[in-house]
Amino acid sequence: MSTHDSVTNPAHQLPDVSQLVVGVLGGTGDQGRGLAYRLAKAGQQVVIGSRTAERAEASAAELGLGVRGADNATTARESDIVIVAVPWDGHAATLSALREELAGKIVVDCVNPLGFDKQGAYALKPEEGSAAQQAAALLPDSRVTAAFHHLSAVLLQDESLAEIDTDVMVLGEDREATDTVQALAARIPGMRGVFAGRLRNAHQVESLVANLISVNRRYKAHAGLRVTDV
Amino acid sequence: MSTHDSVTNPAHQLPDVSQLVVGVLGGTGDQGRGLAYRLAKAGQQVVIGSRTAERAEASAAELGLGVRGADNATTARESDIVIVAVPWDGHAATLSALREELAGKIVVDCVNPLGFDKQGAYALKPEEGSAAQQAAALLPDSRVTAAFHHLSAVLLQDESLAEIDTDVMVLGEDREATDTVQALAARIPGMRGVFAGRLRNAHQVESLVANLISVNRRYKAHAGLRVTDV
Repeated sequence: MSTHDSVTNPAHQLPDVSQLVVGVLGGTGDQGRGLAYRLAKAGQQVVIGSRTAERAEASAAELGLGVRGADNATTARESDIVIVAVPWDGHAATLSALREELAGKIVVDCVNPLGFDKQGAYALKPEEGSAAQQAAALLPDSRVTAAFHHLSAVLLQDESLAEIDTDVMVLGEDREATDTVQALAARIPGMRGVFAGRLRNAHQVESLVANLISVNRRYKAHAGLRVTDV
Repeated sequence: MSTHDSVTNPAHQLPDVSQLVVGVLGGTGDQGRGLAYRLAKAGQQVVIGSRTAERAEASAAELGLGVRGADNATTARESDIVIVAVPWDGHAATLSALREELAGKIVVDCVNPLGFDKQGAYALKPEEGSAAQQAAALLPDSRVTAAFHHLSAVLLQDESLAEIDTDVMVLGEDREATDTVQALAARIPGMRGVFAGRLRNAHQVESLVANLISVNRRYKAHAGLRVTDV
C-alpha cells in the first residue's frame, strides 16, 4: 500500500504555493467571494478584483482575513495566480481587456457556461469549445488552466463549515501550472486537486454543473464530487 | 439529521427491482460483461445479448451465476430493463433494429461517445446531443434513461473486489424509470444510484469519461465518482 499511495496521492510532490498571491476576478460574486474566503482562511494572500475598486474594497473589508480589494487590472497585475470567477456573459470582454496584465500568469478559469429555463439548467456551447478554451484563445501569453467548477458557493461561504468535502478537477496543458493549481486547491481543508485532462476536455467538466444543479434540486443538497481510487 | 437523511438518501423509497430481468446488449464486451457479472452476483436475473446467440451463450457460460445468453433481439424481448453497452460505432444501427423489441421497456444507455488520438481521449459530438438522446430519438416507444457511464470495466470484472466504490449518475425524463434504474444500481454493493438530470444533460456525463481516462493515466488508477452531500 505505501508505494501505491505515493503514486496515487494527488498531493504528492506538488509545489509549495503558500507564498503566492491569488487574485480573484469576479471576487464580489458568490463563487468568487467563497473561494477568496476559503483561500484567505487557509493563509493565502488574496486580492479580490471587480470592475470598480470601491466595490472590491468593500467586499474585501467584509471578508477580513487580510483580503485586499482592487479593480480587475490591478488585481491581475499584483497576483501570481488569477482565478476567473466572472459571469459567463462578461467572460470574453473581461479577459480581452486584461491580456497584458495576465501575461505570464497562471490563470484558473472556473466559469460554467450554463443556460436556464423552466426545466432547469443546461449546457451552453461556447464557440471555442468551453470557457477555458475561450480564455486560452484570448490569453495566448498566459498559462490557462481550468478548476474549481463543482464547488457550492453556499458551502464555500458557510463559516460554520471547517472543511469542504469535494475534489477539484484541474485541467490544463502545462504540467507546472496544473500542479500549482492542484496545490492551491489542496490548501483548502477537505479539498484535493486532481489532474483531469487537457483543456479540450473542459466543456464536460464545466457543464456538469447543470447535473449537480439537478442533484441539488432532487436531494436538497449542495453536491460536490469525489474522484474514487485516487 | 434523521429527517434530513430521509430526504437525501438516494435509496429512499426506490422500487424493489429484485425480480426484474436485466438484459445487457453488448454483454460480451468488457463493460457489458462487467455489469452482467455484478448484477448477477447481486442476485439479479441477467441475459447477455450479442449479435450471435452462440457468442452470447459462451460469455454467459463463462460468467455462470445463472446468466443466460441470447441474440440481441431475444435479449431485448425477454428483459424488463435493457442496458445498452454496445460500442458507439454500432449504437444507432443496433437500436434502430430493436425498436419493436424495446417498446415499453426501460432502456439504460451507458455508451460514451469518445474519440482517441495521441493526446488521449476526447468527446465526440453526436448529432442528437448525446448517445442517450440518440437512443431516445430512435426508440420513441421506450423509456430511455442514461446511467453506468463512469464504471471501470477492470474493477467490475475483478472477482476479488466485493464492492465498487462509486456512485451511478442516472438521467432521464421519466421519474418511475429513473427510480428503477437507481434501485438497480443500488443492488451492486458499494454503488448508489443518484438522479442527475434530464437527457439533455447527458452529453457531459457521457464525455466526462475522457477526463476519468486522464485521471487513470496520471494516477495509475481506476477512477470512479462519488457525489458528496447526497
